[in-house]
Amino acid sequence: MEQVCGQVNTALESFLPGDWQVPGTLKEAMQYSLTAGGKRLRPLLVIAAAESLGGSREAAMPVACAVEMIHTYSLIHDDLPAMDNDDFRRGKPTNHKVFGEAAAILAGDGLLTHAFYSVAQASRRYHVPAEQTLAIVEELSRYAGPCGMVGGQAADMEAEQGVTDLDGLRYIHEHKTGDLIVFALKAGGRIASASPRQLDALERFGRNIGFAFQIQDDILDLVGDEAKLGKSTQSDVKMEKVTYPYFAGLEASRAEVARLTAEAKGALEDGGIPDPARLFEISDFLLKRDH
Amino acid sequence: MEQVCGQVNTALESFLPGDWQVPGTLKEAMQYSLTAGGKRLRPLLVIAAAESLGGSREAAMPVACAVEMIHTYSLIHDDLPAMDNDDFRRGKPTNHKVFGEAAAILAGDGLLTHAFYSVAQASRRYHVPAEQTLAIVEELSRYAGPCGMVGGQAADMEAEQGVTDLDGLRYIHEHKTGDLIVFALKAGGRIASASPRQLDALERFGRNIGFAFQIQDDILDLVGDEAKLGKSTQSDVKMEKVTYPYFAGLEASRAEVARLTAEAKGALEDGGIPDPARLFEISDFLLKRDH
Repeated sequence: MEQVCGQVNTALESFLPGDWQVPGTLKEAMQYSLTAGGKRLRPLLVIAAAESLGGSREAAMPVACAVEMIHTYSLIHDDLPAMDNDDFRRGKPTNHKVFGEAAAILAGDGLLTHAFYSVAQASRRYHVPAEQTLAIVEELSRYAGPCGMVGGQAADMEAEQGVTDLDGLRYIHEHKTGDLIVFALKAGGRIASASPRQLDALERFGRNIGFAFQIQDDILDLVGDEAKLGKSTQSDVKMEKVTYPYFAGLEASRAEVARLTAEAKGALEDGGIPDPARLFEISDFLLKRDH
Repeated sequence: MEQVCGQVNTALESFLPGDWQVPGTLKEAMQYSLTAGGKRLRPLLVIAAAESLGGSREAAMPVACAVEMIHTYSLIHDDLPAMDNDDFRRGKPTNHKVFGEAAAILAGDGLLTHAFYSVAQASRRYHVPAEQTLAIVEELSRYAGPCGMVGGQAADMEAEQGVTDLDGLRYIHEHKTGDLIVFALKAGGRIASASPRQLDALERFGRNIGFAFQIQDDILDLVGDEAKLGKSTQSDVKMEKVTYPYFAGLEASRAEVARLTAEAKGALEDGGIPDPARLFEISDFLLKRDH
């Protein structure tokens, strides 16, 4: 996983063609957040899904980079004063703290837009058929858009003004975090010409680990180690934010993470994924992580 | 032109599939700005370019809507307090004035992301070949992205802090306004299977009317009628913003608009566009407009 992560980081560092004229501050602001580290979970999922079906890592890389650009833009915009108003992210000052709000908004817009350019490179450079790549474009815009990740963030902002029950919380988790994880897996599958049954298995795997991932995040916010996390804990409690552990308690939440992980693995076994070992590894890593 | 404009408005009103679950405020905020009127210049250009080469209006419509979504998102984000801090747009309160800053940022993100979904519909619904549609995706992300429209806006923000000469101003105009106009024309051409020579003619037409359009905007800001414009004039003067009339004077600016318009028309005549009448009509409209 570390080796793949290094390859993703290298690809992300050269994400803008060198002969493109991009204003200095904008490029710097985009690069700052894109290279600020992080687990690279979503790119790893794209690549692991492609490889689980015998697809090529090279062909998966442009989409792996695209999904990280989308994730990074969403963090930059979520951290803005008008949104979650966060000063630190991954142990470093947030984008708007370094470059100012206007540059942070534009850096987010730039990364979001450029993600689609990166997806298109799968066809241009690695001969993924145009139909497959276009299906990935359509799914990225759907899973990251108003009924996907942006919708989840909007519901989260509305919920902070008081309206949340367990259904509302599920909606937020499903879209704010889950949708992009599901996208990553299905896009990896598409690059390796997955069958509809295999795409369905990857989607069910993604839904389950996505939800487990978010519950684990909420658990870590409650009992995690600030130094390892690179951000302050107990922020949900301080913000009086309703989370899964708030409804179910800590022990039941931990059990739910384990149950969802087992369910995720089962989906791959039932769904005819020839080589799921790397995807199993990622789901185990998520289960045991402390940051 | 009015008839086409009405068809674009109808298409934009139903831009989100009805069975999609989108949080109420987000959907409302997106629709508010998307249906707030405006000239619909960019969609008209997509359709006129497609029809100038014998392409179908139906097949051009998804891309026409997409370019208006991109344009609208850019206005929403540009109006934010951290950017231009505008309270009115097209005679109505700006998005963040009605829905708040967080919702306005997300409405912009949602429109930007959904634009790519809309482009993909050209293939799904109207059988535009996947290669053509993917080329449109790639160009949209390039012309609207960090080295295109977002880059132009970033350069404009930097320039407001004092650094501008005529070259800097050209960079801003070329990217902030020009790139999306050029995209609209080339995308319309691609839908009608334009040859490379025809695409080149459409690009030169777009570059010229794009620059003319921006100079005309600057002229109207200086001497226009506030009621017709739906916004206050002399804002550039008040902001001490450097504009083309500032460098060249009012009369020379007017002459330049006329010269660029003539050059634009010449590009179509030289470039083998079979039926350029509608495109000529749009460039004449831009030349004579008072809002």
